[in-house]
Amino acid sequence: MTGLRRADKEITDRGEVEQVLREAQVGRLGTSVEGRPYVVPLSFVYHEGAIIFHGAGEGKKMAEIARNPRVCFEVDAAELIPSDNPCNFNFRYRSVIANGMAKILEDDPEERLRCLRLLVEKYAPGMGSAMTAERMASFEGLAVVEIAVDEMTGKRSPA
Amino acid sequence: MTGLRRADKEITDRGEVEQVLREAQVGRLGTSVEGRPYVVPLSFVYHEGAIIFHGAGEGKKMAEIARNPRVCFEVDAAELIPSDNPCNFNFRYRSVIANGMAKILEDDPEERLRCLRLLVEKYAPGMGSAMTAERMASFEGLAVVEIAVDEMTGKRSPA
Repeated sequence: MTGLRRADKEITDRGEVEQVLREAQVGRLGTSVEGRPYVVPLSFVYHEGAIIFHGAGEGKKMAEIARNPRVCFEVDAAELIPSDNPCNFNFRYRSVIANGMAKILEDDPEERLRCLRLLVEKYAPGMGSAMTAERMASFEGLAVVEIAVDEMTGKRSPA
Repeated sequence: MTGLRRADKEITDRGEVEQVLREAQVGRLGTSVEGRPYVVPLSFVYHEGAIIFHGAGEGKKMAEIARNPRVCFEVDAAELIPSDNPCNFNFRYRSVIANGMAKILEDDPEERLRCLRLLVEKYAPGMGSAMTAERMASFEGLAVVEIAVDEMTGKRSPA
């Protein structure tokens, strides 16, 4: 049963935790407003202790963050390991759960541009510099968010 | 930029939403306690409007649910689509976000067994019936949780 008896193994090496964050293509933002949790998948980039993503300024993600900037961010990579033992199934996985404060970047165009370039560079390597201030200005209603990570925990299985 | 300009496409067919839930190997539970969101990946099974998973009775997931049973549950399947247009990247994806109330099954051994069998059957097809009451009793400290889904929303891209 999913490694219930074996203690989940914390990844103690900060470099490995950061590697898991850097390699993940999709992460999930968790928010909490008035006791209602919300989890949504998104593309993102991890850079020097911050998680950066973007979205529609009028969207639900931004409304949630505006009401409570304390967020959780999760990534995982898992594959099922077949077992000969009935009732036993296990995943090979690595995951990271990060907590932090999210900030919608509004006042500083240079900071927005820096973050957007990092995001483009992750998914379209070599193309970050093609994101110019003019191009950024053409995206109406674009919100860029930076999560300053307070703490993060990585786990892997098998140990 | 990640489909910002094109409206995300809601999956309106309930059967397709349920298919996305059934096919996902890993889902993420979102909880909310005192304004702190928490997101954690887990194995699960979707069955007739309910999401079932298990875990250590003393673990953080169960502590969170005990304090606030209102949860969110998310699954996604995504792959990056290369683009010729610099600054443009898109994912082909399907995702589901479900909201509901989680209940830790404690008083009814038959209900616990039924849920564990469904879980085993998903990951080890044909093996569900190998989960017996005796075997279940051997898992000390095992908590089984059923989320009664109130509402769920699916999205896919491209439309």
